[in-house]
Order: sequence, then C-alpha cells, then structure tokens
Amino acid sequence: MTTTVDFILTNALVLTMDEELKQFPSGAVAVLGDSIVAVGTADEIAQEYTANETFDCGGKILMPGLVNAHTHVPMTLLRGLADDLRLDVWLMGYMMPVEREFVSPEFVRLGTSLACAEFIRSGVTTFCDMYYFEEEVAKATTEAGLRAVCAQTVLKFPTPDADSWEDSLALARGFIERWKDHSLIVPSVAPHAPYTCTDEILRATADLAVEFDVPLHTHLAETALERENMRNEQGMPVIPYVKKQGLFEAKVIAAHCVHIDLGEMRTMLRAGVGVAHNPSSNLKLASGFAPVPQMLEVGLNVGIGTDGPASNNDLDMFEEVRLASFVAKAVSNDPTAVPAPLALSMATRIGAKALHIGHLTGSLESGKRADLILVDVTPVHNSPRFQRDPHNAYAQIVYASKSTDVSDVMVNGKWLMRSHELLTLNEAELLAQARETAAQIDAFLINREQSVLRKLIALGGSMEQESFELQVKVKLEDQSIVLSNIKNPEITITAYKHYRQFDNYFSFEDPSQGRLRFREDELIDAKGNVVGVRSRLTLLGPREDKFDHDVLLSRSRFLAPATHTLRFYREYFKPVGEEVIQKDRLRWHIKYKDTEFFVNLDTMEKPELGKFLEIKSRTWSRKDAEHKAELALELIAILGAIGGETMSQDYIEVISER
Amino acid sequence: MTTTVDFILTNALVLTMDEELKQFPSGAVAVLGDSIVAVGTADEIAQEYTANETFDCGGKILMPGLVNAHTHVPMTLLRGLADDLRLDVWLMGYMMPVEREFVSPEFVRLGTSLACAEFIRSGVTTFCDMYYFEEEVAKATTEAGLRAVCAQTVLKFPTPDADSWEDSLALARGFIERWKDHSLIVPSVAPHAPYTCTDEILRATADLAVEFDVPLHTHLAETALERENMRNEQGMPVIPYVKKQGLFEAKVIAAHCVHIDLGEMRTMLRAGVGVAHNPSSNLKLASGFAPVPQMLEVGLNVGIGTDGPASNNDLDMFEEVRLASFVAKAVSNDPTAVPAPLALSMATRIGAKALHIGHLTGSLESGKRADLILVDVTPVHNSPRFQRDPHNAYAQIVYASKSTDVSDVMVNGKWLMRSHELLTLNEAELLAQARETAAQIDAFLINREQSVLRKLIALGGSMEQESFELQVKVKLEDQSIVLSNIKNPEITITAYKHYRQFDNYFSFEDPSQGRLRFREDELIDAKGNVVGVRSRLTLLGPREDKFDHDVLLSRSRFLAPATHTLRFYREYFKPVGEEVIQKDRLRWHIKYKDTEFFVNLDTMEKPELGKFLEIKSRTWSRKDAEHKAELALELIAILGAIGGETMSQDYIEVISER
Repeated sequence: MTTTVDFILTNALVLTMDEELKQFPSGAVAVLGDSIVAVGTADEIAQEYTANETFDCGGKILMPGLVNAHTHVPMTLLRGLADDLRLDVWLMGYMMPVEREFVSPEFVRLGTSLACAEFIRSGVTTFCDMYYFEEEVAKATTEAGLRAVCAQTVLKFPTPDADSWEDSLALARGFIERWKDHSLIVPSVAPHAPYTCTDEILRATADLAVEFDVPLHTHLAETALERENMRNEQGMPVIPYVKKQGLFEAKVIAAHCVHIDLGEMRTMLRAGVGVAHNPSSNLKLASGFAPVPQMLEVGLNVGIGTDGPASNNDLDMFEEVRLASFVAKAVSNDPTAVPAPLALSMATRIGAKALHIGHLTGSLESGKRADLILVDVTPVHNSPRFQRDPHNAYAQIVYASKSTDVSDVMVNGKWLMRSHELLTLNEAELLAQARETAAQIDAFLINREQSVLRKLIALGGSMEQESFELQVKVKLEDQSIVLSNIKNPEITITAYKHYRQFDNYFSFEDPSQGRLRFREDELIDAKGNVVGVRSRLTLLGPREDKFDHDVLLSRSRFLAPATHTLRFYREYFKPVGEEVIQKDRLRWHIKYKDTEFFVNLDTMEKPELGKFLEIKSRTWSRKDAEHKAELALELIAILGAIGGETMSQDYIEVISER
Repeated sequence: MTTTVDFILTNALVLTMDEELKQFPSGAVAVLGDSIVAVGTADEIAQEYTANETFDCGGKILMPGLVNAHTHVPMTLLRGLADDLRLDVWLMGYMMPVEREFVSPEFVRLGTSLACAEFIRSGVTTFCDMYYFEEEVAKATTEAGLRAVCAQTVLKFPTPDADSWEDSLALARGFIERWKDHSLIVPSVAPHAPYTCTDEILRATADLAVEFDVPLHTHLAETALERENMRNEQGMPVIPYVKKQGLFEAKVIAAHCVHIDLGEMRTMLRAGVGVAHNPSSNLKLASGFAPVPQMLEVGLNVGIGTDGPASNNDLDMFEEVRLASFVAKAVSNDPTAVPAPLALSMATRIGAKALHIGHLTGSLESGKRADLILVDVTPVHNSPRFQRDPHNAYAQIVYASKSTDVSDVMVNGKWLMRSHELLTLNEAELLAQARETAAQIDAFLINREQSVLRKLIALGGSMEQESFELQVKVKLEDQSIVLSNIKNPEITITAYKHYRQFDNYFSFEDPSQGRLRFREDELIDAKGNVVGVRSRLTLLGPREDKFDHDVLLSRSRFLAPATHTLRFYREYFKPVGEEVIQKDRLRWHIKYKDTEFFVNLDTMEKPELGKFLEIKSRTWSRKDAEHKAELALELIAILGAIGGETMSQDYIEVISER
C-alpha cells in the first residue's frame, strides 16, 4: 500500500541540508499540501508513495531554497543609484533624500515584486526584510508566493510612513495583529538600530515582539563608529547596551554584528539571538569583517543576507554564500575556515534558525514546508563534476554555481518557477514600471544636482532661506578704541560672544552657484577656554549691490545647522575649489537707533590679513538696506574707526583673488 | 563618401574604457578585418561608414572584452576536486599527484577548450595562462578564437611535460620561436615562482624572454610564508631578490604580489612589471589581501585574474572585478577605494597593459583589435537602470551584472558567440569528454583514498618499501651495565648516535591500514647540544609474528623523508587517533657474528615508561628472521640484560592500550 501525495520530485542529487548533511545521490522528495512528507532514495520514495504529479529532476541538485537573512527589498528600485561613496554620503546624501521623496505604498509594492522576481530566479525561498510600509511588502510577497519575515521599521526620526515613532509602532502593531497567523509571512517589528532609536523605542518594540511572540529585527554593531560612539556615550559596547534596554527579551534577528567581541557573542547566544551576516554589504560599505568563524564556534546561528540591493547591488545569495566562505578564510588566515558545507548550511538550515523559523524551513525534512529549488550543476562553468567526496557537491554549489543555474523553485508546496519561467509574476510589466520609477528618480536627482542649493535642501533638516545682509568693514590698526567706544550710551549691547571661527569655503565650476561655507565656531569664555563648538552650513549667493563707502549689500544666504562632517559635505557637494579662513572674533549684538546690528572685531589668523571692524545687519528691502547703510556708517564713526581703510570685498573674495 | 567596413555594431551604450573613460550613450563601433576603425555616436558612424553587416545591439552595453590576467586554464578539469584545504595539502596532496598522473597533451587541450567555452560565455576575450604543454594551450585557444598570453612553465622539479628544467626551457624556446608572430597568441615563458626555481632558472628564463622580446609570467610574493622564507634564506624580500637575479630585465607579468611593500612596488614600477591581482584565489586559499589601492597609487598596471579554476572555482571575471573592488574597500576601510570605473579598467585597459599587450586590446579605440562584448543590463537582477551619473553604467557592470548577461563576443574581428550561442566550440562534446576525464580522476583518487599506503605513495618523493624488522626489548633498571658491555670484543661498533626522538602515531578507522608515524629526531652531540634535526614518515603495518622470548617480527614498513609538516600529514591523512611518544635514545649500529644489528638504549620520556634495551635488525625471510632472533637473544645476554622483563609489544601498542 502506498500513500498518495501531490508531488514526487525524483532523479535528483538531494542535499537535505539537515543536521547530518544527509545526501541522496539518486534521491527523491515527496510533497503533500504545503509540506514535505518524505525524503529518501528514489527507490524508497517510489515504493512508499504514489504522486499526482511526478517531476523528473534530470540529475540536478535538489536542495532547500536559500534563506536571505537580511534585506530591504523595496530598495531594488534604488539599486545602482549611487555607489562608491562613504556610508553617510550614500545614506544621507542619496538614499534618504530619495526615499523621502519617493517611498510610498506603491513604490514599496513594486520594489518588493521586483525583488521577489529576482529571489525566485536566484533560488531564494525565504527572506527577512526591514522597511517602511512593511504591510505592502508582505502583500507583494504573498502574491509572489515567497516566505518572509517582514519587519516594520521604527525610528526616532520621521519616516516615509510615519511622522513619529509612536505612529510607526502603531503600524507595526496593526501589521502584526493582522498577519500573525499567515502561512507565508511572519510579521515582525524593526527598531532600526541603537543609534537611530531611543531607549524607549527599544523597550517598546521588544515589548511588542514579546506580546505577539514574533521576531524583532534590527541592525547591531555594523560599523566601528557605532561601537566607539556607544562606548563613549554609554560606557559599554553595543550588545550589553541593547540587552540593558530589554531588547533581548524578544526573539532577536541581529543584522551585521561586525564589531562585537567574544563576551558579546556569549550574551547573544544566551539570549537566543540569530545573526544575519552580510558579506557584500560589509565589504562594499567598508564596514569591516564580521567575526563569523568565532560566532559559529560560540554556537550562534549565523545566517547570510544580501542587505538591501542598493548596497550590494543585487540579491544574489549564491554570491553571498561564496563570499561568506571566502572572507572567513582570508580574515582568519585559514583556508579550511567556513568550508562549503557549513557556508551552505548558513544559507539554509542555520539561516532559518537565525530567523527563528527553523521549524518551518531551511532543510528538506519530513514535516517542514516544501521550500525547495533545483540547481543545474552541469553548465560549462561548473564542469566537470567530481563525486569522490560528499563535500564535492557543496563545493560545486558554493564555489562555482551561479544563481542563474537555478531552474525550478517551489515554496510552501507551490511551484513559483518551472524551467526558468516565473509562474506568479509578470516580469516584463514589473521591469517596465521600474524603468518609469527610475526615470522619475533620475529626473529628481539630475534637477537637484544642477544646483548647490537644491542639493543642500535635499539633505533635509531645518534651514533658513533667502536673507539679505548689509555689511561694512574697516581695517583697524588698534582695536582698543572700539572696545572703549562700544560702551557709548547710544549703543545698547544685547549680547556678546568671543569665538574663534573656522570657515571652509567650497567653490563650484559655475560661479553663479555661489559659495558654500562650512563654519565651525569655538566659543571662548573670559578665561580663554573653549566652552562650546557649533557648526553651520551657509550658501552664499553672489553679491547684490554696493552702496557708498563700501557698504555691501550681500547676498542671498541659506543657513542650516551642519549636522555632518566637513568631509561629508566635501564628498557630497564635490567642490572644484576650497579655501580656509580662520579668525578670532569678538561679537556684539547691539541696538542703535532701534535697529539691530552685529558689531564684529575680527583678527584674521589664517591668512594673516590684520584686524577689522565689521558692522552687519539683516535686511529685507532696498529701502531698508539704504537706511541701515546710513546707520552703519554712523556706527563706524561712533566706534572711532572713521578714516580707516574700508574694504570693498568679503574676506573670501580677497583671498580667492590673491 | 563613406568608407566600407566589415561590421558596424550600433544602438549600444558604448563604454570605450579608454584613458578618458569616454562613453557613447547611443554609440557605435566600426570594424574592418581584425581591428576597430572607429568608435563614436551611432549617427557619426552611420555618416562615415557603410558596413557589410550592421548589428543592432538593442541598447545593450558594448565594451571591450575582459582580460583575465592570470590563470591556469587546463585546470578546469580539476575544478572542485578538493576544496577547503590548506595550500600545501591542496597542492601537494591533491593537485600535484593528480597532475602527475593525468596531465598530457590531450588533457591540456581538453581543459583549455573547456576554459575557452567558459571564457567566451562570460565575456573574457584575452587571458594570460601558465601551465605545462603550453603549446597545446595555444593550439586549443586559437581554435576557440581567443587571444592569450601563453607561458610555458619552468620548474626545478620534474613536471608532467619535462624531466628537467633544461627540457622545460627548451620547450619554451621552441614554443616561442614557432608562435612569436601569431595574431592571437603571445608566447611566453613562466619560471613558476622564486621558491620553485633556482637562480639559474630565473636568469635563463629572463634571458629567453629578452631574446625574443616576449613577456615573462611568474608568481611573486603570493603568501606570507614565501616572503618570510625569502627573508630568512636570502636576507631580503621577494622583489629585490628576483630583481637581483635579473628577472626584471624581461617584461614581467607578476601574479599575486600580496606580500610586497611600497619600496618593492616602486622597484616593480621602474622595471615596468605588470601585476595580476587574483582576489578569489587570495581569499579562498587565505593568502592575504593584496595592497591593490597602494599598487595603483604608485602607478603600477594592476590587472585582475581568476587564477586557476581549481582554486576559484570558476573563470568568472565579473565576479573577480566585483571582488577586487569590494576587497579593496574593506581592507583600506574606505568605501570610495577602487570605484567601479577603476575596477572595470583593471579588467580591461589596465589589465592589457599589465600583460604588455595594451597596444592590441583592452579598450575600444581605433587601431586596436576588435575584441568586444555585449552585456545586457536589463535583467531583473540589474533593474532598474539610472543614467544621472556616467558612473552608473560602470556600477551596473561591476556591482550587479552577471557573466551570464554577456550575449555576444567578438575577438580579433571574428564573432565567437552570438545571442549566447558558441560559434567555435562544440560545448556538448567538450562536456562529455570532461565528464569522462573526471570519472577517471575520481576513480584514481577513490582508489588512493582507500589506502594509507597509496595516499603516501601519491605524495611522491623517494621512498623505501616493504621491509621487515625483528626486535626484542628488555626493561632495564640501570643502563650502565649495557654501556660497559657494549665494548665486548664480540661486538663491532660501526656507528653511534645520541638523539631525542619525537614520534607522532596516526591511527585509522581500519586498523589493517597500520599506523603512520611522523618521526622527528634531534641529534645530540657529546656536550648535549642539538646539532641536527631530521624527520621521517613511516607506515607501520600490522605485526607479522612473535618468536620465543618476545622476539617480535614486525612489520612491513614504508619509509619516506617527511618533507612536509606534521600538520600537513594530519590534514592529508585525516587520522582518527593520534599518540605522541618521546624518548631519549643511544643508538649503536653494530656487527655481531657478521650480522648487522641496531642496539638502542631508550629512556622513555613521554610517557614515562622507564628505560629499555632494544635490539633490532632488518630481515627478509622467515628463515633469516629465525636466525637473527637467536642472535638477538645472545646479544641480550652479552649486554647483561638477561633476566630483565621482556616486552611483547612495541611502545605505541603499550600506550594505545592503556
């Protein structure tokens, strides 16, 4: 008596990828409904089962589908948008501005469908995602028929899908409630990373994950900077810190873990944390080399992920598996490290365990879901084939197979690809839609890149726009007379500061773009100590006008706090020239005849141009400017600098003309 | 008036990969005979040229074919044979024994043809090879229609194609003479590496290369061990050493260069040495991270190679280009290092220059040979496509294209592949032949792996086989009586040694395989100083017989000098058990009644078993053994050890039974 099943896949080299790495050189798998009912030799299966459909695998390798343990699938639509940039320039200069502009439910659905097509073609049957509008990711994924852990992102900043973290958390809760019993989707919540979340967010997301017993997906210890900042700010490394916030009470999936030590690994092991190692991303973004051999040695479940396709730039798990092995060998100086069978286990059984769904998928075993792929190992790039050692088959897959060698894919007992033909997605239509989105993004960026101002605005953050400033500057031999005359009763001092000002001026090919100034002020107290630092970014437009006595009406200005480093702005704006000015400044904010002025006493230190008195005031109209110009000249007289040599140019103009 | 050409390839995004990285978004290339006559916009080319055949590229990327700067193509037939092993085990345990057995002109031709099929499919139009029977490589390559620098290997050891280095050199000379004017092949000579060549070989091969003005291809500074050995043995690093031998008088192509410093780079630059960087191989064999950004900074021409397909395990240059960029970024901690345009230049124009054939190939420029490929960048794994930045196209190729996206390949003005169809090779036939060869190699290794003896023999080197030994062993409380009685006039002492013996015994699952002993002797002089070390490998068969008084007839022995480390043998033989014995031994070679014996006075130090007198003699027959057994017992008496407790087992048997 035989049992009837839906499918028998036979005449395959079956790699079960189970704990014992059982292989069946002439093997078969029986599938009933969504699950595997038996794995064995072709003969055994034929004796015990009758199938509604028998599929001859033609000697190909039949193995579990690959598990992509960490990605951001909608970012397929940003693939190749900007490369070879430092992380901050890439993320804050390109990814986030474009995401702010374009990410919508439609964008997320399209990007996910595109990713699913790539996944199916390349033998991935399960992925673990983190993005915005994650419910749309889940919907598109189920339409494609793939299995996924889908995590709704929560950040301390506004996101494309929420104005506040509380809104994001509410999105996550609703999503988890609606999807927690789905056959393909495991809903999840994703506090993005310790440095983009508050303690409160870490706590709240962990509570949510525990409440529904769903995984929590996050980025941990990706860069050396993250680790150093954590040490400086919290006095401890990343892992103890998040543990302290209660994060590890949830079933955590931790992406990256590049900069962790042995003690942290043990902490993670005790907490049952799964790790997603992303070799391409770690290399391409120069994040470092994750201590994969040690993590495995400690006993952690280390899966392999592609990370988002904008930092990879594809979703090819065959490439990642190979790299995981290669990099482990090179970094540990041991060519026997992470051998092929282990690397492939990380991308299947161990990866599924890292995602806390090891009971569902990751190996061909009776009772697990039927998530499986066929790989042709006979193409010329993988020939000939040796059979002496059972490890030969893993080496073929890991070291020479290409994702394009995957011919057939089944998930949850349902075929998604047969003989390279996608069955659940209209690839041509998706590609056409993606081209359209790309053209819009291209247009947005091309427009932005033409203008320094628009690039500045694209960075986001608070910003003041369009102001005009009137200024007059007089060279002084001696500052003491001004220091005494500032006490004149006609002058009301409302504020006083002493600081050293460091200015970096970027100039551009097109002078009409103006100059961009990165300004850093060191505030100095009465004792001469530096008591504070602030930096600002100012876009200086071309000069507007000049009045009598070298009173200048300068320039449309755009002011923003400089939240990034000078290096960031240099790489982002790509100036053709750069000038540095350093000065010591005494600055008074005063009122004179009910009008506000700034009085600056400057000592130019670099270059050594001498000492100056500068009177400045904001202005809004030509008429107002003319009035203030008169007042400014009166102030010059009151302050005793009349007769001094006036200067018809701003410091930077003097310098750049030298 | 238009000029008539053979082909116009039009409607392509043309990446010329010339010095200025000129691109033509809607471009065309005109080909006449073997060469490119013009590259420009589709409109320009259409106006100036009329073609016998116009090829619509359908918007694909048209670019120069890739240059694989270092490989060993016939090793396609050894791909995936043995992986995840340390370099010495892999090379001396597997590659070299199999090469000794299988490498023939036929093997080389088949392996080359197979490699050429893979090259064409993956967009490689030029490669730089080093192997045995190199003229066969050249023949198979010209049949396939590819361009190559083919270097005949010269080694200080016998090779599959020559019994001595002089023979190899003669092969190289003949090959160069016959092929030096070939349109596709640049013949070359390959002193394999400094550590596998003598000074004389380095000198002679350089002279040969200079005589014919052909490149010289070699491996330099691949591993840290090579560098350290060179420092220890020659008192200088690798590059100064080979320069001293005159190697750099030739046009050198240096593979690897992983362990070189800035001074060495400058030396190489002055000598015009081209470098072949092999990222996959360096990672997989854990050789280290080549200082690629520094080499490029210094101004060296650094090409990219796959190395042999047995250490890669494929010939996929798309993968190598991506890895070259990835690894450079990660190691220099700078994600802007080796950006996509530079990585792709290394695999095209710069690579050709590294091979000293930059005038022939590597970029799409008028006058160069028509070596070009079409790449489809519209598949789902490479969609969408951005056009804002000219670098987007390079990023697409480097970070997301797969070798399988190459659809058409032309070399020297001749199509080798159209729409994924190979035009010069019968792939199915090659694959069938490769399967046959693989089956033979499998059988050879399966047979070998069943027997420790055969594995030992497969290592090669000198070896004594099949001897029998008779021994009797008596426990002593005091050695002084033996030390005095050894001077007995009936005993003629022919030699005496004092040494400390360290034995490592490997045992195997099947006890009938015997035990393998790795023995290291420290020779000790009269003052107690260690004055020499030697190591030997002995396969000890099972006990043969036992005579009266515990005289043992032991065991078929196979002796070989232990030219590798203990670690090598451990990884190669994979013993199931390992025991360590350490003893201090006084050893006399004596004659007694015209018969040779060894008299050993042993103090067992590890484990502390006590002191023993051992009498041993080689024997060849049962009768001879019986006679010697009697004499041995007489010697025991003469030496004054009669009545001592005899021992019926060898030390290792005592220990392993405890």
